[in-house]
Amino acid sequence: MAANCTIAVDAMGGDRGAGVVFQAITDVLETDPALRIIVFQKETVSGPSISPVVSDSSFKSMIASGRLEIRHSSSVVDKSDKPTYAYKHRADSSMADALRCVAEREAQACVTPGNTGALLVFAKALVGTHTSIERPAFIKRLQLGSNISYVLDLGANVDCRGERLFQFAVMGSALVSALHDIERPQIALLNIGSEDIKGNEQVRLAARLIEEAKWLNYRGFVEGGALFNSDANVIVCDGFVGNAALKAGEEVARQILKQFDVMLSGHWWSFFVRRLSRPLFARIRRGIDPDHNNGASLVGLLGTVVKSHGNADRRGFAAALRQAASEARSEVALRVCRELDSIAFNA
Amino acid sequence: MAANCTIAVDAMGGDRGAGVVFQAITDVLETDPALRIIVFQKETVSGPSISPVVSDSSFKSMIASGRLEIRHSSSVVDKSDKPTYAYKHRADSSMADALRCVAEREAQACVTPGNTGALLVFAKALVGTHTSIERPAFIKRLQLGSNISYVLDLGANVDCRGERLFQFAVMGSALVSALHDIERPQIALLNIGSEDIKGNEQVRLAARLIEEAKWLNYRGFVEGGALFNSDANVIVCDGFVGNAALKAGEEVARQILKQFDVMLSGHWWSFFVRRLSRPLFARIRRGIDPDHNNGASLVGLLGTVVKSHGNADRRGFAAALRQAASEARSEVALRVCRELDSIAFNA
Repeated sequence: MAANCTIAVDAMGGDRGAGVVFQAITDVLETDPALRIIVFQKETVSGPSISPVVSDSSFKSMIASGRLEIRHSSSVVDKSDKPTYAYKHRADSSMADALRCVAEREAQACVTPGNTGALLVFAKALVGTHTSIERPAFIKRLQLGSNISYVLDLGANVDCRGERLFQFAVMGSALVSALHDIERPQIALLNIGSEDIKGNEQVRLAARLIEEAKWLNYRGFVEGGALFNSDANVIVCDGFVGNAALKAGEEVARQILKQFDVMLSGHWWSFFVRRLSRPLFARIRRGIDPDHNNGASLVGLLGTVVKSHGNADRRGFAAALRQAASEARSEVALRVCRELDSIAFNA
Repeated sequence: MAANCTIAVDAMGGDRGAGVVFQAITDVLETDPALRIIVFQKETVSGPSISPVVSDSSFKSMIASGRLEIRHSSSVVDKSDKPTYAYKHRADSSMADALRCVAEREAQACVTPGNTGALLVFAKALVGTHTSIERPAFIKRLQLGSNISYVLDLGANVDCRGERLFQFAVMGSALVSALHDIERPQIALLNIGSEDIKGNEQVRLAARLIEEAKWLNYRGFVEGGALFNSDANVIVCDGFVGNAALKAGEEVARQILKQFDVMLSGHWWSFFVRRLSRPLFARIRRGIDPDHNNGASLVGLLGTVVKSHGNADRRGFAAALRQAASEARSEVALRVCRELDSIAFNA
């Protein structure tokens, strides 16, 4: 049985409102009996007001059993708030309160669909980063074929220097080790060509740093396609580049599946094709579609924090919650920090 | 009827050898009677040696009619040559000779499958750039849905400052105006979010510069997915970012089509599905697959230069040749330069 685990959830800040968050929470609590969830929200949500989204009885029994707790925060971080503004004026927000739960060890993980810039500032200030890390990075698992790759950074850091990219390599390697049974994960660096002379100065510096760190398993440069087809376990890139490449790939998948669907409509035998192609398309969606494969983890923090896509639906937010529980139980944050501690020793 | 046009082709430097280039040339010459091609290669290719790839009679009649001319160069730029090395030691290469044809107005366009770094150095030195342009940029047409977008830069420039991104916007706008009947093409800037506060300093500076240039039709930031689904005609980005995002999207398309094909194999009725899906998949391939949608143009030069993918096959190289002919006939390079001239006037 899975270990007991508490997740603090920020119910505000998502594009679809708190209702979707509560739906996802009940789904996840039903299938994971060792999980407990503390939800932070601004408005009072009593039984009736969420009745269209959550069946009252299961919801009430979860609250009665203590597995679901609703707490009220005084404010909400708005989507358009600048990080500095949010930090100054939204310290009592549902986002900050949920993160505080992790900082104070009341919860082992936090999940929020809210403002990314504010999250980075609050997470760093409240949960804290490892001493050797300037800023945490967003990491995500991607799978289109048979291989799984973890890609970082996906938008927390832009204009990354070589040293920062090197930190990503260390954190990504530690995270994959912690989540999967791989002792020395293969690390690749995203570049615009696989030859040594390609790319910019920062990527070449990062390559040198990773190569010199002999305890890392470095396999060289890869191109953008490797995000979705590579035997490397970790793909390291600047957050701007990673974000753009990820979203480009996601859009192509979404477009092709949509156009395929349009093509089939109106054919009597399309029923059979849809039936046959369901497992394949479900696998593609799970591996790459942000509506299904939802949740980017912040790595480099002293606790587990997962950012859900702001537009996530019930299934999407549930995926982010499960990811947070899995990472908290594997003590990923702790293990990444230990790996970072060892750098000074190894270097 | 299309206007007369001469293309200088570098037959060397492709991964599949000169044979593929000659196959593609005969294909294109057969369908485009106003086209003339001068091919540069190192080894002597007489009739028999290329007989497995080109039928002797049509090849000979093209040479006899003067529409195909084979010239011999003394050296070849190797794939692994550094640009500075190539510039110093490969000035008599097939690549340099083909570019010289454009510089000396013997040809209206040049196509090469060779070393990208060397191409950038030779193109700048031999063909020349507009005085206001530091380095040319790679631009490519992408289409997955109903919209066509042109994306630049795709790898000629990394670490682009805001001013450089602004130049891309001007060049992209001019190129789309020249190729399509659009007076003020919509321009978007690639960023990691659509809000004004997102991204790095250079992107925000570029946004300000493009916005201030009132003769440009700026519509704001877009995210990576917009490369394959946007109503913007021009998407501007740093070459590193554009290269990674393009290749990520291409790989997703390739993987999905491949997996779909595997899924169908072994089903008796797959014949019908394949037949039905052929137009859709052909459209996807034409719009995004580098084997079909081959050829990135260098924009900002004083002549038309198209880079073919090194691994292009017969159909792919033919696509690059047709793209070069189309751009030469539309006098794209000249019109882009005129637009760049007007900046000083407009500013």
